Amino acid sequence: MTVSRTICFGFLTVIAVGTILLMMPFSTSSGNWNNPIVALFTATSAVCVTGLAVVDTGTYFSFWGQLFILLLAQIGGLGYMTTTTFLILLTGRRFDLRQKMAIQQALDRRGMQGSAKIIRSIIATTLIFEITGILLLLRGFVPEHGWAKGLWLAIFHSVSAWNNAGFSLFADSLSGYQSSKLVILTISGLIIFGGIGYQVILETFVWLRDRFQGRRENQIFSLDFKVAISTTVFLLAVGTVAFFGVELRNIETLKSLNFDGKFLAALFQSVTTRTAGFNSIDIGSMTNTGLFITIAFMFIGACPGGTGGGMKTTTLRVLTSCTKTILQGKEEVLLYKRRIPIPLVLKAIGVLVGSVATVIVVTTVISLTDSSLSFLEIFFEVVSAFATVGLSTGITAALSIPAKLILVVTMYIGRVGVLLLMSAILGDPRPTSIHYPEENLLVG
Amino acid sequence: MTVSRTICFGFLTVIAVGTILLMMPFSTSSGNWNNPIVALFTATSAVCVTGLAVVDTGTYFSFWGQLFILLLAQIGGLGYMTTTTFLILLTGRRFDLRQKMAIQQALDRRGMQGSAKIIRSIIATTLIFEITGILLLLRGFVPEHGWAKGLWLAIFHSVSAWNNAGFSLFADSLSGYQSSKLVILTISGLIIFGGIGYQVILETFVWLRDRFQGRRENQIFSLDFKVAISTTVFLLAVGTVAFFGVELRNIETLKSLNFDGKFLAALFQSVTTRTAGFNSIDIGSMTNTGLFITIAFMFIGACPGGTGGGMKTTTLRVLTSCTKTILQGKEEVLLYKRRIPIPLVLKAIGVLVGSVATVIVVTTVISLTDSSLSFLEIFFEVVSAFATVGLSTGITAALSIPAKLILVVTMYIGRVGVLLLMSAILGDPRPTSIHYPEENLLVG
Ligand SMILES: [K+]
Ligand SMILES: [K+]
Repeated sequence: MTVSRTICFGFLTVIAVGTILLMMPFSTSSGNWNNPIVALFTATSAVCVTGLAVVDTGTYFSFWGQLFILLLAQIGGLGYMTTTTFLILLTGRRFDLRQKMAIQQALDRRGMQGSAKIIRSIIATTLIFEITGILLLLRGFVPEHGWAKGLWLAIFHSVSAWNNAGFSLFADSLSGYQSSKLVILTISGLIIFGGIGYQVILETFVWLRDRFQGRRENQIFSLDFKVAISTTVFLLAVGTVAFFGVELRNIETLKSLNFDGKFLAALFQSVTTRTAGFNSIDIGSMTNTGLFITIAFMFIGACPGGTGGGMKTTTLRVLTSCTKTILQGKEEVLLYKRRIPIPLVLKAIGVLVGSVATVIVVTTVISLTDSSLSFLEIFFEVVSAFATVGLSTGITAALSIPAKLILVVTMYIGRVGVLLLMSAILGDPRPTSIHYPEENLLVG
Repeated sequence: MTVSRTICFGFLTVIAVGTILLMMPFSTSSGNWNNPIVALFTATSAVCVTGLAVVDTGTYFSFWGQLFILLLAQIGGLGYMTTTTFLILLTGRRFDLRQKMAIQQALDRRGMQGSAKIIRSIIATTLIFEITGILLLLRGFVPEHGWAKGLWLAIFHSVSAWNNAGFSLFADSLSGYQSSKLVILTISGLIIFGGIGYQVILETFVWLRDRFQGRRENQIFSLDFKVAISTTVFLLAVGTVAFFGVELRNIETLKSLNFDGKFLAALFQSVTTRTAGFNSIDIGSMTNTGLFITIAFMFIGACPGGTGGGMKTTTLRVLTSCTKTILQGKEEVLLYKRRIPIPLVLKAIGVLVGSVATVIVVTTVISLTDSSLSFLEIFFEVVSAFATVGLSTGITAALSIPAKLILVVTMYIGRVGVLLLMSAILGDPRPTSIHYPEENLLVG
């Protein structure tokens, strides 16, 4: 089996197991066998760390059901990096060139040996962040809900946030805590670090360690690091300003809050929109402008190598660098004084074309099957599913069964990636040595 | 002045002259001085061959006003190729590499000498098509409207269609003729040939001439020709099937027509959507799915080198070829066994990124200034303006003055092209000889 097929089947297997577990009577709070559509949708949403929900997670599912959801999200989210590595080790397959280079870099620079160490390091990083998150969230949840429920709430939301899963045990997500700086900032931190990519965390850790140990040699940060950090900071800032400005006078979202509350809500919306899928304001009450900006941010998504989804920040940066290159009349695509290889440019185009095509086809089909819903709400839902965000204007439960099944497929495609899925279907390419003459073409 | 600046100023000058002419009392049917916003919007819409209208062209403007609109559209549309060539000759500037290659090809292969011949050839082609169109349309309009008005209607709609201008003297565009095969197919022919690009027409003409003269040598068609023909036929077919299927059961558009009428209306919608902007069904009554498909087709647009707008079919083909390349694990981007140069790939990315960014920013701003309008209608209007299509769900006249002015700018940007405008603003690039090391990046 090719690597891409292994990954695609791996995700399918976990979804299948999850669906069966969530169908069991002990998974629902009513104690009845679960509706198969609900079980399939929830399991897919969890494994793909999307967070779209057709039922209220906190009341519909029993403790066991909630635990399964959390485990599926942990497997899916953290495992986006780890299980890929594991699966490759299990099948004795080599990494593809891209992964190989990224991992070799990590090995060389950090002096680690073998993939098992990377996996251990990823798991350790995850545990450190999740446990820190749980300890902080305890202070937010225990006073109100007591120790037993407070602990479960802290565990669930910490793990869900780190994996950018977006599942919440509260029916209105984090709206009840929209002014709690502790809860909002803890969740924000987990989302950002979970979504920024393992390599970026590792490089930051090495940098910090060297500072503490008094080493003064200049660390050479990878291009991934620079792009991830700068794009994340830029998008967070732009998003905060945009949501603040656009929703300022909307009585149903920001207007009723004081300045600090407005800022915190706008910041959280900016943090959560690109991939996490929690919300502290009612998405369905946002202005059309706010929803449109949200769609754009959802589509861009998180950094690669993390738990988030979307087109990815690096894809955006490669494409904007190409634009800059052509405007400057140059031929080399540069990012931070590094030349971007042409295959990478082609890959960025492939990701964009595949993503746009998927979103257009799915939106078209659902606007046919569920024609009574507003277009913007459908478009929003589809991008949210594809980019594994999980925000919703509130139409998920009301969708028709065909639409729900289409969203299941969309979440899956969005998680494994259009290109990976296509190459899994097409199989390994056969190399060719035929060369063709070059010819120009009028473009644009 | 750089070539790009010359072109940008050229369009601005024609728009300014047009605005002044359309403000004159003799341009309006009421005989009063025209509202400056109406004059500016109409002049821009005409010069940019968009066809969006804030007033009813057939009743608001006098014969002179209508004539000015037609002349502006003729200058803008036909001139998209011709005036570019003219302006370059006037300023003594050389063609940029892209135009040079395309024109040299034409010169070499067709045995023509100099740019003046090309311009004469373009004008002759235009006259042949427009006069043929007028003669055919006379049979459609004269029986109902008499010779004087019938002739003017035939001239106006033939010129408007060839230039893909989309202006009509009927308040409901061509809805009154939706079952007239003569009118619909004549207009369709003018739109298709006007939008397919001068070079494609020239190559077709040479091919036909060689056939008639009994020459049997195989003509080597240019890549532009192959891409233009295949993409146009493909998109026309897909569009016809899509509109037929989606609007089939919509009582306000296709349902009330017989099978032939349904097919003719779906075909015409497919022809007109990508850039012309006429309509034979009420756009505002289309289903959301139909509107969404229309937006996608408008954004793709026509072929380069014609009178149409949008991202252009060639840009789409280059981007999809890149996607195919990466899926096949190859490094060369191929189209019809020809290698696409990398700068062309970068340019296609630039066109896409610039177009998407413009549409997103303008949609966001207008959804703020005119927040009471439905999101889909605003999105539709913005893409229509940017791709110089001119279809509207009917909100154009009701837009606020800021929104109208923003659309004026959008039509202008859409016509001269984001990249050309940016390079006009930035000036000619200075060549650089610094080379940077290559570094990989995780994408998608
Ligand atoms: K999510
Ligand atoms: K038009």
